[in-house]
Amino acid sequence: MPPILRTVVALVAILLVSPAFAQESDPLPSWNDGPTKQAIIDFVTKVSEPESGDYLPPQDRVATFDNDGNLWAEKPVYFQLLFAIDRVKALAPEHPEWKDKQPFKAAIEGDMKTLAASGEKGIAELVMASHAGMTPAEFQQIVSDWLATAEHPRFKRPYTDLVYQPMLELLSYLRDKGFTTYIVSGGGIEFVRNFSEAKYGIPPAQVVGSSIKTKYEVVDGVPTVMRLAEMNFIDDKDGKPIGITEHIGQRPIFASGNSDGDYQMLDWTTAGEGPRFGLIVHHTDAEREYAYDRDSKVGRLDKALTDAPEKGWVVVDMKNDWKEMFPPKE
Amino acid sequence: MPPILRTVVALVAILLVSPAFAQESDPLPSWNDGPTKQAIIDFVTKVSEPESGDYLPPQDRVATFDNDGNLWAEKPVYFQLLFAIDRVKALAPEHPEWKDKQPFKAAIEGDMKTLAASGEKGIAELVMASHAGMTPAEFQQIVSDWLATAEHPRFKRPYTDLVYQPMLELLSYLRDKGFTTYIVSGGGIEFVRNFSEAKYGIPPAQVVGSSIKTKYEVVDGVPTVMRLAEMNFIDDKDGKPIGITEHIGQRPIFASGNSDGDYQMLDWTTAGEGPRFGLIVHHTDAEREYAYDRDSKVGRLDKALTDAPEKGWVVVDMKNDWKEMFPPKE
Repeated sequence: MPPILRTVVALVAILLVSPAFAQESDPLPSWNDGPTKQAIIDFVTKVSEPESGDYLPPQDRVATFDNDGNLWAEKPVYFQLLFAIDRVKALAPEHPEWKDKQPFKAAIEGDMKTLAASGEKGIAELVMASHAGMTPAEFQQIVSDWLATAEHPRFKRPYTDLVYQPMLELLSYLRDKGFTTYIVSGGGIEFVRNFSEAKYGIPPAQVVGSSIKTKYEVVDGVPTVMRLAEMNFIDDKDGKPIGITEHIGQRPIFASGNSDGDYQMLDWTTAGEGPRFGLIVHHTDAEREYAYDRDSKVGRLDKALTDAPEKGWVVVDMKNDWKEMFPPKE
Repeated sequence: MPPILRTVVALVAILLVSPAFAQESDPLPSWNDGPTKQAIIDFVTKVSEPESGDYLPPQDRVATFDNDGNLWAEKPVYFQLLFAIDRVKALAPEHPEWKDKQPFKAAIEGDMKTLAASGEKGIAELVMASHAGMTPAEFQQIVSDWLATAEHPRFKRPYTDLVYQPMLELLSYLRDKGFTTYIVSGGGIEFVRNFSEAKYGIPPAQVVGSSIKTKYEVVDGVPTVMRLAEMNFIDDKDGKPIGITEHIGQRPIFASGNSDGDYQMLDWTTAGEGPRFGLIVHHTDAEREYAYDRDSKVGRLDKALTDAPEKGWVVVDMKNDWKEMFPPKE
């Protein structure tokens, strides 16, 4: 080692052991002190400190997060459904047949009751009509344009402002401690990828989600991937462990969700050997956000809430555990 | 900034501009100097140097690599097929019906001619019988056990020794220059994941490949992912751009393959806007490895070789471009 390098190494070493550096600042400033925050910090500390008996190497530190209602809000309905409705409205002039055909008629007229009554099948029809027939890059542009202009009906803010500040801090904290963070969403994989890097620091390749099929074709000599109006994979309930197996190739040690759609991901994650952590975000704050659980149509949290104590899953009480809800307006 | 930190920063700065550091060592020592090596270095340099007119940010630097015949050898046949045959032999006592049933009979008797005649359908039957009915973790153990003991018929070395030293250097070089490296293999995703981290430095989540379906079920109270005897996705030809879209979510800027199964990946990658690189590994070295291309059943390279000049793909002549073939025996 050249002398100058030796000097630098020595100085860095001195710096790292100095009290000023050893004293870490609060990694979760928007979380109120209490058992929830402490449980998270205890877990992260024990798996990331080599001298801990529960230490796991960084490659084992995989954390998966549901998106809707877990990283951003999901009321009055999933934001992606609002996107699909706006998209159907925008495309309506090219589809005169839609004005007499459900669920398109309901979407165009903003008749949410009829739309809801059309069920999963109706909503799937809306999604297919609005999400297919273009390349992934063209779809990204459409989503970007919508997110840049659409506004949440209650909060009067862009949808991407309605990400939970405490969860952003949790994602950063985990990454600082050597975790790899993934989104595992029932929502569309390409839709979520649109903002996952900018909003959550999660790159496109670390998003797992529902998808439609794509087709490869050479159009006028140009190699093209085209989005098809056909479901490929539904990343919800049983689909979450399956999607994780396919995309990530290993079982997470940390999983976070907010609804019964996350039950299987939480159960499979925490049933593994060694240290495991299951986190449930419980919507308890009607004033700052929404309060709902067992009876909600969107984001129903029933069985997972009942089984949480027995399974050892930590339940976030949004009203009491979180100091802040959304990031401040810019 | 505290004074001690200022001192360290100053020293690091001095160190970084010192001539000893500026002079980089050869990043590709097993590549002979010449146009192939130079083309790779020129491309990597121009996309990773901020002052270059072709600079791309690290998140755009996605590189995808075929595996069989591109990162490791694939002769006499794909190593995964040899694994499937050995596995069928090992399971044969539990399946007395196999000794009169093709393609199992041929596999058990080592009758490669009959096996080859059974075609894709026959090989798929072998794979299903040998790769399904267990959890991904159990499958990993079976693959590990096989790789630890099986030996290549010609080289008398473990299959995982038959990785190309020059390609290992290329993977490292790209990562050092801010690329993210992925495997995009026609082989089974879980099979390749078994050794991708240890041999290539590519973690399981950065492997895209063919897959069988999995099922989530709770067995005796234990949440379990089970591998099913049903194809899910074939990551070959058209499947490669589709698999990349699904898993990675962005078009690579660098792709490397060695057969017509990689044509679509190469074509789609290099048809994108901005700087792009397509690399073809041409097997020209019968002495140190194998020589084959247009007429080979395994790893046929025909159309991609014909179109390479027009498409601007760089063709590696293994015999002349590579100083070393495999890593030295330990």
